[in-house]
Amino acid sequence: MIDVTLLGTAALMPLPGRALTAAALCCMGRCLLLDCGEGTQVAARAAGVSLMSADVVALTHYHGDHIFGLPGLLQTLTSQGREAPLTVVGPEGLEDAMAPVMKLAGRLSFDVRLVRLPPEGLRLRDVHAAWPEGARLAAFPTRHRVPSQGYLFALARAGRFMPERAAALGVPVRLWKALQNGEAVEVSGRMVTPDEVTGAPRRGLKVAFTGDTSPCESIVEAAREADLLICEATFPSDGDAALALERGHMTFSQAGALAAEAGARRLWLCHYSQRVEDPEACAPAARARFPGAVCGADGMRMTLAYE
Amino acid sequence: MIDVTLLGTAALMPLPGRALTAAALCCMGRCLLLDCGEGTQVAARAAGVSLMSADVVALTHYHGDHIFGLPGLLQTLTSQGREAPLTVVGPEGLEDAMAPVMKLAGRLSFDVRLVRLPPEGLRLRDVHAAWPEGARLAAFPTRHRVPSQGYLFALARAGRFMPERAAALGVPVRLWKALQNGEAVEVSGRMVTPDEVTGAPRRGLKVAFTGDTSPCESIVEAAREADLLICEATFPSDGDAALALERGHMTFSQAGALAAEAGARRLWLCHYSQRVEDPEACAPAARARFPGAVCGADGMRMTLAYE
Repeated sequence: MIDVTLLGTAALMPLPGRALTAAALCCMGRCLLLDCGEGTQVAARAAGVSLMSADVVALTHYHGDHIFGLPGLLQTLTSQGREAPLTVVGPEGLEDAMAPVMKLAGRLSFDVRLVRLPPEGLRLRDVHAAWPEGARLAAFPTRHRVPSQGYLFALARAGRFMPERAAALGVPVRLWKALQNGEAVEVSGRMVTPDEVTGAPRRGLKVAFTGDTSPCESIVEAAREADLLICEATFPSDGDAALALERGHMTFSQAGALAAEAGARRLWLCHYSQRVEDPEACAPAARARFPGAVCGADGMRMTLAYE
Repeated sequence: MIDVTLLGTAALMPLPGRALTAAALCCMGRCLLLDCGEGTQVAARAAGVSLMSADVVALTHYHGDHIFGLPGLLQTLTSQGREAPLTVVGPEGLEDAMAPVMKLAGRLSFDVRLVRLPPEGLRLRDVHAAWPEGARLAAFPTRHRVPSQGYLFALARAGRFMPERAAALGVPVRLWKALQNGEAVEVSGRMVTPDEVTGAPRRGLKVAFTGDTSPCESIVEAAREADLLICEATFPSDGDAALALERGHMTFSQAGALAAEAGARRLWLCHYSQRVEDPEACAPAARARFPGAVCGADGMRMTLAYE
């Protein structure tokens, strides 16, 4: 199960009622924060998301509207007595971008760990034990004016446990739990492995978050059959496509096309230019490509559950 | 005339509906911003104050909740095409405090001038020609855990022009305007100065802003007969006085006592601890000392006019 909360939907500068684009993905009481612009901590509080339970802040790039909320967040967590380390991940340039942030934030009550994600992503249980076994955060390249990346949060799900096979292999019932937890067990001198007693892996859950980007193939790959794609849709109309490309952004229509090509199940639009006064008025362009496109709104929330 | 807008009333961390304490003082279309925590730019926008017209940002001290909104504000002004320089004033340590702010903010479209106020204060007309002749911003020392200062914004008002005296001195009517503007004029080979044709200076306007501080005599002096004292009132009850002193803050009651001792005309309370859920419930402690004490609220606004 993943609780997804969209904390803001603005581009460039925070507005009354429209915080800068950021999202929280929570699972088993722990959270990932995706981007942290000025005001993200307030938006989280307003949406009922406690960032004390955030283990990772994943930055899509280092433009101010995606990172200027960090000094305040780090100080707030300190004032709340946080001791657990906080992992901050981001594209190339993470150390340089974080240096003035850490300088401004000053003395903290916890460690901030700067991490470049390996290609296979970060196993979240390595960061905090409460994360489910199959939870993983990976990055994919995006196309902005500076080094940038999107994120794929995946919750893998093991196959169904088959008690009849365990019984046939002579595994006593007291050892079934270990097998279900992914551990091998010894039975009469031989190791029985979980894959011998479980069916094919079942469909897990996947949420993709683009950050600021023009359309590109890596988004389609990352969002392939994703349960949810949270995609930037900076510019309202098809006529803005050239401008969008120049600025490293996309239009409502392009966001819809990406979601359709990826076969995503759901699409939330966000990161609206100030010119987008009413996202619903721009939505038809996205829905022409992806009929279920939803205009993201600050505080929008949903729970994604296993089928 | 001074338009005063209280942009926020929170201490330490911004909350939904309670932005960090900051205020804007506007006059003839120009503004002073007092402190700039995370979210101050949004609070200003929500209150209808355009920070494009801000000439000075006056920082009371360099704790994060008073300066973390600066990088975002500077970038927003750049994205709006600002060219006019922005003067930033503050207590000892201004250059060090601003270094990481400027580093985070990156390339700007205008100059940021770091200025330590001289004892006589800053004549605002030297910063922008639209400020009235008598507008001046001065600092006064306060008592916090780090170097800190409050601000006194004063609008001096010349004496009344006396046409009968001008006529008696033989000044032709076409030169009266110059005298009214404070310039000397030549009449039949002799210089006539404004003080020869104006009465005693009239009562101007004064607004004092404390920033974070324990009670101290310099606040009383600065706020002497002020039209408005905007005073921190971090802690709710008299029982918090020892804690308040230790932290360099004050209680509602102490804020009321300061305003009474200074003979201020109005008192707005702000910078509430999170423990102050309903400032009105704490107000009686302040009103026991200063009956007209007003609980500041985000976006509260008033126009102070000459008598």
